[in-house]
Amino acid sequence: MPERKGQYTVTLSSRPTILGYAAVAGKKEGEGPLGRYFDTIFEDTTLGEKTWEKAESALQREVFTRAMNKAQLSPSQINYIFSGDLLNQNIASTFGIREFGVPLLGQFGACSTMAQTLALAAIFVDSGAADLCCAMTSSHFCTAERQFRFPLEYGGQRPQTSQWTATAAGAAVVGMGGGGIRIAEVCIGKIMDMGITDANNMGAAMAPAAADTLTSFFQDTATGPENYDLIVTGDLSAVGCDLLRELMNRQGIDLGTRHTDCGLLMYDREKQDVHAGGSGCGCSASILCSYLLGKMERKELNNILFVGTGALMSPTSSQQGESIPGIAHLVHLVTQ
Amino acid sequence: MPERKGQYTVTLSSRPTILGYAAVAGKKEGEGPLGRYFDTIFEDTTLGEKTWEKAESALQREVFTRAMNKAQLSPSQINYIFSGDLLNQNIASTFGIREFGVPLLGQFGACSTMAQTLALAAIFVDSGAADLCCAMTSSHFCTAERQFRFPLEYGGQRPQTSQWTATAAGAAVVGMGGGGIRIAEVCIGKIMDMGITDANNMGAAMAPAAADTLTSFFQDTATGPENYDLIVTGDLSAVGCDLLRELMNRQGIDLGTRHTDCGLLMYDREKQDVHAGGSGCGCSASILCSYLLGKMERKELNNILFVGTGALMSPTSSQQGESIPGIAHLVHLVTQ
Repeated sequence: MPERKGQYTVTLSSRPTILGYAAVAGKKEGEGPLGRYFDTIFEDTTLGEKTWEKAESALQREVFTRAMNKAQLSPSQINYIFSGDLLNQNIASTFGIREFGVPLLGQFGACSTMAQTLALAAIFVDSGAADLCCAMTSSHFCTAERQFRFPLEYGGQRPQTSQWTATAAGAAVVGMGGGGIRIAEVCIGKIMDMGITDANNMGAAMAPAAADTLTSFFQDTATGPENYDLIVTGDLSAVGCDLLRELMNRQGIDLGTRHTDCGLLMYDREKQDVHAGGSGCGCSASILCSYLLGKMERKELNNILFVGTGALMSPTSSQQGESIPGIAHLVHLVTQ
Repeated sequence: MPERKGQYTVTLSSRPTILGYAAVAGKKEGEGPLGRYFDTIFEDTTLGEKTWEKAESALQREVFTRAMNKAQLSPSQINYIFSGDLLNQNIASTFGIREFGVPLLGQFGACSTMAQTLALAAIFVDSGAADLCCAMTSSHFCTAERQFRFPLEYGGQRPQTSQWTATAAGAAVVGMGGGGIRIAEVCIGKIMDMGITDANNMGAAMAPAAADTLTSFFQDTATGPENYDLIVTGDLSAVGCDLLRELMNRQGIDLGTRHTDCGLLMYDREKQDVHAGGSGCGCSASILCSYLLGKMERKELNNILFVGTGALMSPTSSQQGESIPGIAHLVHLVTQ
């Protein structure tokens, strides 16, 4: 049963279990440092579909199917899918999971969606509202470029602060009981807006939200970075990570060597020309649902904080002169 | 504590309470049959803002503030806001509630968002994950026309099956205890897609989802329309309501005189030229959070099913030849 702890944190007293997880990614991600951890690499990022949007839906379909197989469950056993993506009106999710006949709670958290969906799935299972849920999300480089920036053919130049949207998806099935990885606590974030207007510097827009949620969680639980094996942010990438450390240092909290970031893990920044690093809902989702959960399964990590970070803007809001609000959601994962 | 009932329904054993609710709307809605029930009518639908999108954010800001006042709470007491809208990347919600500093769980359910957010708020409170939540959403005629169809200046002709997106917002504060209106059960829907491709006929796209969710709920609870004072769908409007009755009749379920629809309630179809009726997230939200909850507060209604309906499409998906999937979520409201 969920219980509130402090001002922002929820403890999940029954500690729901991750019964299965899967990640799929594209060619560039497959060539990155974590390529071998993904369940499937799609060399052809159309996945045989006629449009990039349908390709992203196919990523969701593929990762959901694999997660079901690994959890040894069928879709009809799942009470709820929590999914979302970056596309207008969440069409990647809708059309990707349409055929499975599972009740859907569509989410929007931008690149924080994996953490958001996982937190909701955990609360639902811990509360008894559900026996089995699937938390999932996706992103695709080509759908994101078309929607947020320019068509690829335009050949626009990308500044050094920009990030590369990952073509990737991740899914985790949450239920009760059994051994394995457990969800102990969640901390949902509030919108943080420091007035960043540069849509090519998402890391700076999201870092204050990550700092705020982490600080809230540490205060609520009376813990600090030293109590965890690893603190993994979603996709702050190079600029955002530097800013996060600075913001935490100002609070007297030193993340030390225990912090890493999925945007920095996804690509080899020297060889793969991704500038500041990776981004997109699928970046943190695929890395969580392969590399990180795999390490936990092998007990190489036993106690981690997964902090998804999102930039809640659209091209329209930026064009209207608005700043870029950030949000960050935290999930505390343990192996017992 | 939430408990599963049957295949799709969740019973909320502590029956969370609606502690306060508010609705705001625009000039056309104020001139409709329910105009006098809304807390505030904005004759100027810019609300003094420079863009339509900022105006819609202002609707959210205004309705949240009023709901807080009516519940006699301050934003700092709210554990979570559940909100969403029709705009790309949910910007109406984000910028509308940014200033309040409340943890946000962004939702996407298209026009079903009020039912979706209310269901989630109820589950969170019943489970103990939250003490106080706010469920809310908005829509605006001008933002919807620009995003989904044509700029107003284009002067495009609208077919008789089309609906008028309401300029409106609704918010409900959910907590535990006290008298008043209680949330007894919720039923989250699955995507239903019957292959409708006409983006000017949303009612037909959404009716199968409403039929599916209602049928699931009746089966799970072993009840029928006769057990409720009223069954209110979100915005099927004229075409969708006829189709819903036909689909239910095929299942041997006669909705009889107990069914109405917010899309049909919002406007005077003879005088206000809205063709099939109203639509938009704010349509069902504003009518629930004024007219319907008001009737329950006065015990004129004691037992209702509120069934939000949404069409999960985007202009992009339609242009790519996809059909229009529908979804419907149900909330069972009682006065004891």
